[in-house]
Amino acid sequence: MHQLQSIERLSFNQITLDKWSLKEAVNGCLRAEIPWISVWRHKIEEIGLKESKKIIQDAGIKVSSICRGGMFPAATEQERQARIDDNRRAIDEAAELGTDVLVLVCGPAPNKDLVGARQMVEDGIAQIVPYAKERGVKLGIEPLHPMYAAERSVINTLAQANDIAENYHVDEVGVIVDVFHLWWDPDLYNQIARASGRILGYHVSDWIVPTPDLLMARGMMGDGVIDLRPIRLAVEQAGYNGPIEVEIFNQKVWNTPGDEVLAKMKERFIELV
Amino acid sequence: MHQLQSIERLSFNQITLDKWSLKEAVNGCLRAEIPWISVWRHKIEEIGLKESKKIIQDAGIKVSSICRGGMFPAATEQERQARIDDNRRAIDEAAELGTDVLVLVCGPAPNKDLVGARQMVEDGIAQIVPYAKERGVKLGIEPLHPMYAAERSVINTLAQANDIAENYHVDEVGVIVDVFHLWWDPDLYNQIARASGRILGYHVSDWIVPTPDLLMARGMMGDGVIDLRPIRLAVEQAGYNGPIEVEIFNQKVWNTPGDEVLAKMKERFIELV
Repeated sequence: MHQLQSIERLSFNQITLDKWSLKEAVNGCLRAEIPWISVWRHKIEEIGLKESKKIIQDAGIKVSSICRGGMFPAATEQERQARIDDNRRAIDEAAELGTDVLVLVCGPAPNKDLVGARQMVEDGIAQIVPYAKERGVKLGIEPLHPMYAAERSVINTLAQANDIAENYHVDEVGVIVDVFHLWWDPDLYNQIARASGRILGYHVSDWIVPTPDLLMARGMMGDGVIDLRPIRLAVEQAGYNGPIEVEIFNQKVWNTPGDEVLAKMKERFIELV
Repeated sequence: MHQLQSIERLSFNQITLDKWSLKEAVNGCLRAEIPWISVWRHKIEEIGLKESKKIIQDAGIKVSSICRGGMFPAATEQERQARIDDNRRAIDEAAELGTDVLVLVCGPAPNKDLVGARQMVEDGIAQIVPYAKERGVKLGIEPLHPMYAAERSVINTLAQANDIAENYHVDEVGVIVDVFHLWWDPDLYNQIARASGRILGYHVSDWIVPTPDLLMARGMMGDGVIDLRPIRLAVEQAGYNGPIEVEIFNQKVWNTPGDEVLAKMKERFIELV
């Protein structure tokens, strides 16, 4: 199976070192010669969109995606509208920072009605597609692991994400394949094939054992049980050859000096992704 | 939607109060007039099968199932054979304690090969079916939540369990529906209908938010986000009218006096299940 020959597709998802500001993250990538970054909105908020844009442009770094839009379901019409407004701002931020991918973490249910919440997700996406198109931004539905169904997203399989995405043109709505969320799914390879032409991002990390926590559960590639390479090859077979984001939520990684993390990330990326 | 009128279908899964010995658990059920119990094998081991059988028979309590067989995948042929031997002992225990249901927690992969591990599960089940049949015991494949894929079971959806069970007669192999493991699944109701005539057990608890831990994550019915009644009705629609096990892994519940737990369990069972 073919190995990556360089880090030209490596994207640093900045949640991996949440202690770093956007400026620090960009500088870290420059030092490590990592060509891509995925930017989180709480980091943009810290300094404003204008300053964020300047940092990105001055550095000449490419932005693979903005994390995150979504969070559509809510108890009232007013709250749902507020979420739509926030998604429009996220679309603006993506456009301004020069990426055409907004990652959607679709949100949990406001009550016990999962079917209703999933409908709210579909309705919410329908509402923001025209604006995203206008601004040249594609919406990437990221299915989250089923253990996040109650607190983060009611979209928990790639099948669900494909079901929604297929209502739209491939230039409007696609899917994000994240190994941490999807590795367990017996239908994963079928659904990756089904997503051909619609994959807007590929995220890697690892599932560590024993799993210490629901959220801070990810490891550096190679530290866990996920067989990474076959998944990348399937994603490429389905037409995706864009940046590959490394996105790790892990307290030990957060506590490690940033440059060390980036050095190991590059090494493992070549060796294992 | 119709409410349960009594606790005649209530079964106490004894892991809910792991501090209790089998004797204590049976006595607790007698005091609370709970007619069914699900017995864990580490509790049988503490006192031996003969003594366990005497306790059950003297009390006149009905056993809904034995937890658990399974754990089929292993790195070597020798280890896999040892698992088969252990499953035979579990089948004996079920037969001796007067239940016809052995719950299968199928086991994690010994390496990164999920497909291979899932095949080992199929092969393992095939090996034990004849002996189970001989002893009058049915094998109930319990899909476990995907967050347990790395450490407890590579069977993570009811679709997978159905796929395997359908290779056998309904009197040989069936499935266990546990709301904690399956509530998130967008295909749940289809798969329950597909399992018609094959459901060998129905387990209830709740998914609590925030979820404190991967294992000790369950709550008493009503303390979480699962919409329980529609699932029970679907399970009944699929032909299951047997005991309903309450199975809760939760440190706070373990720390609560047992009789208090059983009292609340009865109350919530009538009100919410």
